[in-house]
Amino acid sequence: MSTNKGCILWFTGLSGAGKSTLAEFVAPLLRDFGLKVEVLDGDEVRENLSKGLGFSKEDRDTNIRRIGFVANLLARNGVIAITAAISPYRPIRDEIRSKSQAPFVEIFVNAPLAVVEERDTKGLYRKARAGVLKQFTGVSDPYEEPLHPEVTVFTDREDIEESAAKVIAYLESQGLVPKGSAAKVRG
Amino acid sequence: MSTNKGCILWFTGLSGAGKSTLAEFVAPLLRDFGLKVEVLDGDEVRENLSKGLGFSKEDRDTNIRRIGFVANLLARNGVIAITAAISPYRPIRDEIRSKSQAPFVEIFVNAPLAVVEERDTKGLYRKARAGVLKQFTGVSDPYEEPLHPEVTVFTDREDIEESAAKVIAYLESQGLVPKGSAAKVRG
Repeated sequence: MSTNKGCILWFTGLSGAGKSTLAEFVAPLLRDFGLKVEVLDGDEVRENLSKGLGFSKEDRDTNIRRIGFVANLLARNGVIAITAAISPYRPIRDEIRSKSQAPFVEIFVNAPLAVVEERDTKGLYRKARAGVLKQFTGVSDPYEEPLHPEVTVFTDREDIEESAAKVIAYLESQGLVPKGSAAKVRG
Repeated sequence: MSTNKGCILWFTGLSGAGKSTLAEFVAPLLRDFGLKVEVLDGDEVRENLSKGLGFSKEDRDTNIRRIGFVANLLARNGVIAITAAISPYRPIRDEIRSKSQAPFVEIFVNAPLAVVEERDTKGLYRKARAGVLKQFTGVSDPYEEPLHPEVTVFTDREDIEESAAKVIAYLESQGLVPKGSAAKVRG
């Protein structure tokens, strides 16, 4: 039993920056504090809410708005709703923030393009450079960095525990997780 | 503070049968018991999750699956997720039931076609009979009645308090609302 205060943890960053990895690392830590947590992964949401949408600006915006709509429904009911979609456009992220009925925590998963392209964990950058994938964020479509994110993590030079601790320290500072949570994560 | 057990209250029935009216009547009663409640109204969901979808069988199925996906996210986090879409096709309702990770309560809002067509609160049946609206449930598209709904209400011959009390009595029988709730509704 917990007095859950819901919020939205909005991870944003380039493909391959480590959004989903960090989100999936943070989620069980929060559950261990007795909190309710849902991870709305970009791919899962596309499958369930946005099948048929492509990667044009308009379709991306629609997809992101849908994620925001569902995250808000969860967050205003006391769930920590974690999203991990690239969400490249600043105005849409700001629109979702402004509509959120629970605290909106924007987490910029910052890794240089050169680094994520070198990693290329899914082989997508190679395909984008070859022109096989069109409108690929960072290559042929813009990524608009957050101007005032609540948290910035640098996945090219922090280990995942360090990045997670920054997220949880912020949540603790806002009373969104129990006191002492960040210290537990840092171990 | 409450130990919310989430569930899905899935209202189904013809256009004009009174699904949304009953859902909106039941929702504040449940909130008064200290429970968390979300109403996923058919029109609101179409606007936020399914813009661009039409009323073909395939598009209707997609719309209903999306409502089911979101209702399940809420219900498994302790929210009473109330849906009020026509949801005319039995196999899709049964699919959502089978995927639900919380109790699925199907509420058949039963009113004879002749009655709802006579009411025609939104003027839709007239348009459907005139052929202006195509694929209209009950007129030019089937409505497949639930075979084993948890609750059936008859909005043509029950007043709304009576229908609501049946819903809440069922929830009480399943331990989904506090004991004594149904008696309070009946007043």
